[in-house]
Amino acid sequence: MDNPAIQTNQDFLYEQVADDIVSMIEAGSFRLGDRIPSVRELSRRRGVSITTVMQAYRSLEDKGYIEARPQSGYYVRLRQSPGLPTPEPISRAALYPAEISVQKLVMKIFHDQLIPGMVQFGAALPDPDLLPTARLNRLLASVSRKPDFRQNACGIVEGCDELRVQVAQHSYQYGCHLAPEDILITSGCVEAMSLALQATCKPGDTVAIESPTYFTLLQMLESQGLRALEIPTHPETGISVEALRFAIEHHPVRACLFITNFNNPLGCLMPDERKAEMVALLAEHEIPLIEDDINGELYFSGRRPNVAKAYDKKGLVLLCSSFSKDISPSYRVGWIVPGRYKDEIERLKLVSNISPPILTQLAIAEFLAGGGYDHHLRTIRKAYAKKTACMADAVLRHFPPGTAVSSPQGGFVLWVQMAKTVDALAMYTQALKLGITIVPGHVFSPSAGYRHFIRLNTAAWSDQTAWAVQRLGTLAAQLEKTH
Amino acid sequence: MDNPAIQTNQDFLYEQVADDIVSMIEAGSFRLGDRIPSVRELSRRRGVSITTVMQAYRSLEDKGYIEARPQSGYYVRLRQSPGLPTPEPISRAALYPAEISVQKLVMKIFHDQLIPGMVQFGAALPDPDLLPTARLNRLLASVSRKPDFRQNACGIVEGCDELRVQVAQHSYQYGCHLAPEDILITSGCVEAMSLALQATCKPGDTVAIESPTYFTLLQMLESQGLRALEIPTHPETGISVEALRFAIEHHPVRACLFITNFNNPLGCLMPDERKAEMVALLAEHEIPLIEDDINGELYFSGRRPNVAKAYDKKGLVLLCSSFSKDISPSYRVGWIVPGRYKDEIERLKLVSNISPPILTQLAIAEFLAGGGYDHHLRTIRKAYAKKTACMADAVLRHFPPGTAVSSPQGGFVLWVQMAKTVDALAMYTQALKLGITIVPGHVFSPSAGYRHFIRLNTAAWSDQTAWAVQRLGTLAAQLEKTH
Repeated sequence: MDNPAIQTNQDFLYEQVADDIVSMIEAGSFRLGDRIPSVRELSRRRGVSITTVMQAYRSLEDKGYIEARPQSGYYVRLRQSPGLPTPEPISRAALYPAEISVQKLVMKIFHDQLIPGMVQFGAALPDPDLLPTARLNRLLASVSRKPDFRQNACGIVEGCDELRVQVAQHSYQYGCHLAPEDILITSGCVEAMSLALQATCKPGDTVAIESPTYFTLLQMLESQGLRALEIPTHPETGISVEALRFAIEHHPVRACLFITNFNNPLGCLMPDERKAEMVALLAEHEIPLIEDDINGELYFSGRRPNVAKAYDKKGLVLLCSSFSKDISPSYRVGWIVPGRYKDEIERLKLVSNISPPILTQLAIAEFLAGGGYDHHLRTIRKAYAKKTACMADAVLRHFPPGTAVSSPQGGFVLWVQMAKTVDALAMYTQALKLGITIVPGHVFSPSAGYRHFIRLNTAAWSDQTAWAVQRLGTLAAQLEKTH
Repeated sequence: MDNPAIQTNQDFLYEQVADDIVSMIEAGSFRLGDRIPSVRELSRRRGVSITTVMQAYRSLEDKGYIEARPQSGYYVRLRQSPGLPTPEPISRAALYPAEISVQKLVMKIFHDQLIPGMVQFGAALPDPDLLPTARLNRLLASVSRKPDFRQNACGIVEGCDELRVQVAQHSYQYGCHLAPEDILITSGCVEAMSLALQATCKPGDTVAIESPTYFTLLQMLESQGLRALEIPTHPETGISVEALRFAIEHHPVRACLFITNFNNPLGCLMPDERKAEMVALLAEHEIPLIEDDINGELYFSGRRPNVAKAYDKKGLVLLCSSFSKDISPSYRVGWIVPGRYKDEIERLKLVSNISPPILTQLAIAEFLAGGGYDHHLRTIRKAYAKKTACMADAVLRHFPPGTAVSSPQGGFVLWVQMAKTVDALAMYTQALKLGITIVPGHVFSPSAGYRHFIRLNTAAWSDQTAWAVQRLGTLAAQLEKTH
């Protein structure tokens, strides 16, 4: 590729140079207005003469690909030749595939959240107006100005001390008395869960999960070669200890993976007494529990529910959470309290990516230390409780009779059960065309048992998006009949 | 843990509340000057009366743990009781373990880089004075002020477009013509390599590696249950294609994991023709190559060497790199060009941590787009070439006769071979006591064949640290004799 043989003739050489530039422009590596490499630079780089490069650039100018700007260099210009089709945004082109596997569907759900102008009832993203983005970003700017030798290192595997102290201080609110060294900072809750699974299981092992449960966790199990054992989950009180006992006695359960507070998608809450009972049962069998508490702060009434970790006497509970629901989804800061698996998790973290960036951790730590976090939480709890109630009400009003909705006690997702004849995947595809994202029930269970369910992100509910629930209701009615 | 039974007497209750606070103070969750929960807050939380909490707080005041500040609350105070030992910083306490496994040693090397005041010849960290930290942080502050709806999302699995475009534009310099969609952004090069291994191998598979090679890669293989097959590596020209051919013909090599440009720790450079030959050989056998090019920009003379990816016609090369050596180690931004494994890498990325934070990616993209990156690279290349030459010279002057050093052609590590009687691990431990970090050769090979080698970070060379090389030389002489 480098240093083309000297004997090739000059014409061929300049055409090759020109073709390479065209291919990079067409691939989008150089875009409208970008400066391309200087003549000298490219000449040195390709081992061809200045003349050859100039000849190549002149031919590109003639064809309208680039323009020379005096004293500055060559730039990609807007081509007006009729040959090129008007490009579609990539995200649009991939919107309506003929067939979708669950894996591809999950990937699409993550991409859908980034299509501008959509009503985002799909991914469980917080309401942007309920995030302290401006304040957090100011703190980020402020911590980045302070000289800190840790900025010159590739990271602290266990995470920065300031943030671990804050998480520890907060932990008494959910029934724990954690020390900073009990905590490891991760790149979000997903990373915490992924490390926890790697630390406790080997490929081929069986993991007990709730049904329905968060689709990313199912993808994670699949990717790690683990079997999922579905435990029926009560829509208001979560996993029953009896069902779990039965499962443990009849299956080689290596670990449990539960969202104990406000399961996604059900919004159900396992009562604290039952958590204690469950932890005792698992301790008896030496089975680790990977606990996802990402929604724990977002209770609608009463007090902060405890985590199962609060009842853990043997270090068997790996508590995972993050600040993605209440402070910032895009900072990607989470944590894990790994109990007896601490060394293993630290080792796995090191070979996964060493650590998250230091500045984002410090900004979150400052946010927590600065006071006002509890006040912020009170505000958003109220707002999400209201949004969820309004949306549930709207679904019941606008969807066909017989539609049922969950009664979430926290978090911000709503689980909607429609008539068995409604295919949620068809609804997903048609809703996208209307500018509305949703998540079809298919992805919440490995046995694909929820094909007539959808999950809605209630954080996106507002007077401005109310129309979309109405449209979804109409869609449900059509799909119910045309079956 | 919650709501202790009502029948316990009042005395017991307040003591329990007080004990919990003490244990959190002693664990470091509440530190000197921190405000502890208010009386009302804790009363509500614990389900005990205001009187009980007040009684508990009064007893803590009496014992000197906390102090009341009018109109403000209760704060942790400096205890002056003689009972507590003066605490040592945690990082110090763990400095001199009696026995070290390779795994623990690697973890310690990562921790050593964060001990203030040490001469950092250990971890291969860039010279802080050669990082554009202030400018980068200003860009971070600036991108964080721009409204960007992506800040409200949990991430773009493939990474942000702005940065992918920059990486693509730069790729012609190392012999590639990449399109932005060929590239996925990762949390550093380590994550890129880890995902690449997961995408190409299954536990039990054999991976060909250089010998010696970067210790984190060995830890990664171990953690993924992979076997390492060591290919002898020439200290100046890297892997020989003949040796690799022999290995492939005699072992079930599933993938290769090579640092083609400026191997760590050797600093050797595989000639471009040989890379082409190697890629052709691997293509013939359909064996993927995971290529670490993290040092590629840091050549000391001549021109930017190509990557093996430049010769890849079958999509079998997974090119991995990052900005940790030249722009910022703590931003944790890297990338992968995964070829035919793109879908699989994207899927693995999603279930690992979804994506890196958006703001750090955007800041790096702005840095690259703003111009001056090439100039910055020219400056640091010269500086690292000089530092490396000076340090090599100093080692040869101050270490015992017979000591040999590598001749790095890029990067900033030096590989030092001492007399066989010198135990590099003993040297590591004693150097730490002198305030100098180094990396003992033990960790660069799964067969522990480099026990009388050390790796030095030449980025930390300066007139101010020259004394440390002299001390290490004296240490080597002592260890050579006392054996």
